[in-house]
Amino acid sequence: MNKVAVVLSGCGVFDGAEIHESVLTLLAIDQAGASYDCFAPDINQAHVIDHVAGKPVEEASRNVLQESARIARGEIKALSELDPAAYQAIILPGGFGAAKNLCNFAFDAENLTVNEELEAKLLKAHELGKTLAFACIAPAVAAKLFGPQGIRFTIGTDAGTAQALEKWGGSHVDCPVEDIVVDDNLNIVTTPAYMLAQRISEANAGLSKMVEATLARSLATTAAS
Amino acid sequence: MNKVAVVLSGCGVFDGAEIHESVLTLLAIDQAGASYDCFAPDINQAHVIDHVAGKPVEEASRNVLQESARIARGEIKALSELDPAAYQAIILPGGFGAAKNLCNFAFDAENLTVNEELEAKLLKAHELGKTLAFACIAPAVAAKLFGPQGIRFTIGTDAGTAQALEKWGGSHVDCPVEDIVVDDNLNIVTTPAYMLAQRISEANAGLSKMVEATLARSLATTAAS
Repeated sequence: MNKVAVVLSGCGVFDGAEIHESVLTLLAIDQAGASYDCFAPDINQAHVIDHVAGKPVEEASRNVLQESARIARGEIKALSELDPAAYQAIILPGGFGAAKNLCNFAFDAENLTVNEELEAKLLKAHELGKTLAFACIAPAVAAKLFGPQGIRFTIGTDAGTAQALEKWGGSHVDCPVEDIVVDDNLNIVTTPAYMLAQRISEANAGLSKMVEATLARSLATTAAS
Repeated sequence: MNKVAVVLSGCGVFDGAEIHESVLTLLAIDQAGASYDCFAPDINQAHVIDHVAGKPVEEASRNVLQESARIARGEIKALSELDPAAYQAIILPGGFGAAKNLCNFAFDAENLTVNEELEAKLLKAHELGKTLAFACIAPAVAAKLFGPQGIRFTIGTDAGTAQALEKWGGSHVDCPVEDIVVDDNLNIVTTPAYMLAQRISEANAGLSKMVEATLARSLATTAAS
């Protein structure tokens, strides 16, 4: 069972999953000889952003699962169907969707809450010894859930964001775009991706490394159990 | 000037640009040390498909440029602003958007017409000796425009689609997913991508080769001129 669950948060950097990060994560998993299933919560997006104007579209409404399905080429299931026991790891790519639809960090960092369904899946996977990985701003979810356990994580080098996330008990580690931060104790991998990337190949370097480390840890866990 | 124009057709395999193909094309260009600009026509999509249900969403309307901007992370211009003289090559990823928004092949193959703006840009680029490349079903556009000149192209191995496109005078060449077909005379590169790919790494193999060949031809053209 060399299988990864990828949780998407829409389709588009400003209101959903960052598309490059999502696709490059899927590519790295496939190139490593592992397989993936995509999941997304069946909820409405926080809002819809016109990606040319960079502004919200009034009165527009889109569904996170339906939009995420665009990245997954229709091969996707509702997050409620994710069985953590069936996967070696769960990976969350970034994009504002991770901070708007999977948690509320983009809107109310002070009172950060994570989507309940996602929280339950991640905590269950963690309890089962699965590896969790988060890219870009998605570590906000990890910082909230695993802050009390002292998680070490990265969101790149942005001091303000780092400070806002350390509030929950974890420690931010500055990290260059092509690298990752591994919390060995908690079995959690994070990488900055487009928190820092200026070019798609830079994002790819860190994301590949994240997937590689995630799969290596997953196999080690399997062998040990 | 090692610069490529990438023309997108929306965001999502069933009604827009195929997202994996688009992202992997951008990645290959960047990894080769070249740069890209993204363009899309500022027109409404033919329709909107719910990518979970695989069915049209009634009364929904989306703009091809705005949706394409999701893949381009907001860094995109209207197709009307594309100056073919400023680029070494123009690449069209596939997805149904290429056959629904950039031409009407998906709706009326018998009376195939190409978006007028796109046709003008591609013919101008060709006249200037630029390389053109088309992935997946996007070669339908090339088959129409360059059929009278006897283009050799591929859409993979689908006999029915091939026959429908040979109607315009060109010749289809069967091609495996990891390979490309190059028309040396017309300076046009095509690859099957998701016409055949079962896995993202398969699509990536052909798309990388397409970009590599496109950039190599572009540089050769520059050196010769």
